[in-house]
Amino acid sequence: MNTRKRLQALRREASPVAVAAPEAVAMPDHPACMIGGGQMCEHALVDRDLNRMLFDYERTVRSRFTRIVDVLKHISTYQHDGNFTERAQQLAREQLGFDLPSQVLEDAWVCGLDLSALHSRCIFSALKASVENASTEQAGWRQRLPLDENFLRSCGYHTVDISPCSDGRLQGVSPYVLRILPGPNVRVKAYAGALFDVDVDVSDWAQREVERLSGAMVDGDRLNYLKIAVYHFSSSSPDGQGCAAHGSNDRQATEAALHRLQNELRTAIDQTFGAGAAPDVLLIGVDTDLDALRIHLPDGFGELNAHRYFETAQVYRDTLGLAPDAARARIAGIVADAEGMGGWGQGNGRMHDGMRRLVLALAEANLSQVEYVIKHHTGRYATIGHDEECIVAGEALRPLQLRNLFYFAHLNTIEEGAPDMDVGINIFSKLNVAHGLPVPVLVHFEYDVRIPQSRERAIARGRRVRDAIESRYPDLAARGLLNCAIAVSERDGDERCAFVADDAVDDH
Amino acid sequence: MNTRKRLQALRREASPVAVAAPEAVAMPDHPACMIGGGQMCEHALVDRDLNRMLFDYERTVRSRFTRIVDVLKHISTYQHDGNFTERAQQLAREQLGFDLPSQVLEDAWVCGLDLSALHSRCIFSALKASVENASTEQAGWRQRLPLDENFLRSCGYHTVDISPCSDGRLQGVSPYVLRILPGPNVRVKAYAGALFDVDVDVSDWAQREVERLSGAMVDGDRLNYLKIAVYHFSSSSPDGQGCAAHGSNDRQATEAALHRLQNELRTAIDQTFGAGAAPDVLLIGVDTDLDALRIHLPDGFGELNAHRYFETAQVYRDTLGLAPDAARARIAGIVADAEGMGGWGQGNGRMHDGMRRLVLALAEANLSQVEYVIKHHTGRYATIGHDEECIVAGEALRPLQLRNLFYFAHLNTIEEGAPDMDVGINIFSKLNVAHGLPVPVLVHFEYDVRIPQSRERAIARGRRVRDAIESRYPDLAARGLLNCAIAVSERDGDERCAFVADDAVDDH
Repeated sequence: MNTRKRLQALRREASPVAVAAPEAVAMPDHPACMIGGGQMCEHALVDRDLNRMLFDYERTVRSRFTRIVDVLKHISTYQHDGNFTERAQQLAREQLGFDLPSQVLEDAWVCGLDLSALHSRCIFSALKASVENASTEQAGWRQRLPLDENFLRSCGYHTVDISPCSDGRLQGVSPYVLRILPGPNVRVKAYAGALFDVDVDVSDWAQREVERLSGAMVDGDRLNYLKIAVYHFSSSSPDGQGCAAHGSNDRQATEAALHRLQNELRTAIDQTFGAGAAPDVLLIGVDTDLDALRIHLPDGFGELNAHRYFETAQVYRDTLGLAPDAARARIAGIVADAEGMGGWGQGNGRMHDGMRRLVLALAEANLSQVEYVIKHHTGRYATIGHDEECIVAGEALRPLQLRNLFYFAHLNTIEEGAPDMDVGINIFSKLNVAHGLPVPVLVHFEYDVRIPQSRERAIARGRRVRDAIESRYPDLAARGLLNCAIAVSERDGDERCAFVADDAVDDH
Repeated sequence: MNTRKRLQALRREASPVAVAAPEAVAMPDHPACMIGGGQMCEHALVDRDLNRMLFDYERTVRSRFTRIVDVLKHISTYQHDGNFTERAQQLAREQLGFDLPSQVLEDAWVCGLDLSALHSRCIFSALKASVENASTEQAGWRQRLPLDENFLRSCGYHTVDISPCSDGRLQGVSPYVLRILPGPNVRVKAYAGALFDVDVDVSDWAQREVERLSGAMVDGDRLNYLKIAVYHFSSSSPDGQGCAAHGSNDRQATEAALHRLQNELRTAIDQTFGAGAAPDVLLIGVDTDLDALRIHLPDGFGELNAHRYFETAQVYRDTLGLAPDAARARIAGIVADAEGMGGWGQGNGRMHDGMRRLVLALAEANLSQVEYVIKHHTGRYATIGHDEECIVAGEALRPLQLRNLFYFAHLNTIEEGAPDMDVGINIFSKLNVAHGLPVPVLVHFEYDVRIPQSRERAIARGRRVRDAIESRYPDLAARGLLNCAIAVSERDGDERCAFVADDAVDDH
């Protein structure tokens, strides 16, 4: 039970709004693993060491957040004591690993301790601490993730551009669910409903294409760009805990993402730059209860189909108990069978070898995540709904990707990103505002240290977006229920999540 | 004297705010041409036929706007007559060439004729009529403009991307001042103070670079992208009628545009895509009194300098009376002398041959524009200040480029383009609002007919920007002093400036 969960439990009498109540769901514990007596849910293709490392990391990061409410409640009890500030800082350092903003503590004698301000600032500090410690805390699992840059290049891809839904449950999708190593060649741009911005993608694609065509990229002549859209659904609560942006209708989520990939992105690039220029695309659904995948298979022309897919929960069940080689052969058979589905038959040919290599690797790697949820989260996540700690708006905090840690809206302006931001604010109205807690919003942008003024421009962009958020939700802002902070990171560099002075986290 | 000028004259007693009062300036009539008795201001390198065509075109377009106030005042006198609507429409058709919105006429019996709404809608209709008639009305001069696509390619440029100031006085800069033929290879993106958006430019450059490197562009291997920034100043009123975004300080305008071209745009591209990738850049100042140029000369590395330039008003004076060949030789000498200026000497070498060809052509072509102002505008424009009819926000109305016809803010969102929009609204507060007239704002975007949903997205973008404008200036909007319309055009296609239903100009 995490930080806010405890607070919510305490406040439950006062407020009838319960979020993501797991006790309401009556389902089998291990939906991906229904076994007889004496059998074990231990698949031959699962990397259990990697899973333990990932789970240690998940616990480490999550504990930074779960302790916040307890520490604040404890501190609150002696806010009128003489040595309050010193005691509070000592406890924060011991329990949370960071200082509290001293001005807030020192002002407590006037109107009492401002716990809602402290809560947001602790969330930001915990985010920052997680980013700062990422290279140490992730060292173990980063080198074991199977889909690293070299593997992706061996499939023919120099860049993988992933657009999951903004939903917090998708924010661990790259390292956990897909087991793709986050790095400079992997971009995550989240949008409500996975409805990515086609113009932004064309621009990002074109800039990588210049590097490829100019010869600046090693082996550029045989490499391509891959765009993946990731929609989601909930197998145990299909009408309640699916994608809010699509009214929890997974058919609609599938069709919308498919249309954007194929009829908008691919067509735009082919029509503008010549047939065949379009990047490869892949469509993946995630069952957020289990982190199991629905992988849609491209045909020989790279075209997708809503009905041509296979599901890894079924793959897990079908191959459990098989030796590795037999399991791999069976998976290849399942994929080959799935290629014949969807009404088009095999008239358009089968997907190319690089894509097949990637799809098979994704399927196999996800078996580890399915078993991760079985072993470390009792088969289905205890919290199948929203449970984010904050909103991140702007560009991804690349070193920090974890399920339900934050809601992430990739955007450059609130004017364009308003629908994504509105969904996030709506989620936090229930998660936080209904319980008297403010919505913490981290506005984050990256800069390129080689480019003059790039850092200054990133900060200016952060301030502009912060101002636009405060203008868009004036009621929340006026009631102190919206706490925005601005941070910038050097792209692929050393300065990470540096908070910008003049906002909520700069005075300690 | 144009439409609003007449209205302003009528209202002058009521309002002490006079805009751009030419009568306050006491200066020589023909500052670029100071001659003795018996001499003529007729330069051997000027294309007088082209100038006549351009002047006919200027008069034709401008007359669509100048008649509006007279027609509205005339109509107003019989607004309570029985056959008002029919008479009004007949007069509008005869005098203006378009119908008035009939609902506004029919509602006149209730509270009187809504002249301010009619005024904006007539401005939009006149814009549309000018766009619709462009191919006919421009046919003569388009084929005579010296710097056409072939010429630019002969200088080594597949694309010329021009960022003038948003100021209306710069909105004829391509066909008139620079004599560059507007076409698909020429882009105009205006920003207050010529301070273009580097990220937008990198994206535009990269998309053309993909076409070039992929082999889709003819002779792409020897062609480059050229970015031109155009700042401006006023020789007769340097402190009053220069660039508002730079406090009418031309030194500041020069340095800011130079920095953006060189230290931001070129460095960003060289650092990201490898040294040598950056496009060529050129910096040009325009004396908006005379339409004469200050051309800054790149060195052998393509680097610019605030002090290494020559001025075409001086070139005109220095070469007046010479035969064509002698004049051209003299211009080449002036340019060669200028290359030695600016403190760096010739240590970095001289500009490359293609750039020299372009600079010499720009200098020669601008002599025609200098003489255009001498012959057709008495040597210095009667109105040296602002005199725009409306604001255009979004993307350029490519078929319509004329001095002081509109203020143009190139933008995708008001959130990013707010500084440019604010300058425009401030100008129209004096031009229009102070006289009781609303500010007409045309929000215009282009679409690519080959790309699915491109038109729909352009319309949605237009509505989003329109809404953001109305939110940013709520006082004007509430008082009916802000009239926005939305239009879209097919890029390089047949649908041009099509107004979108649900806004100010759709019901006739």
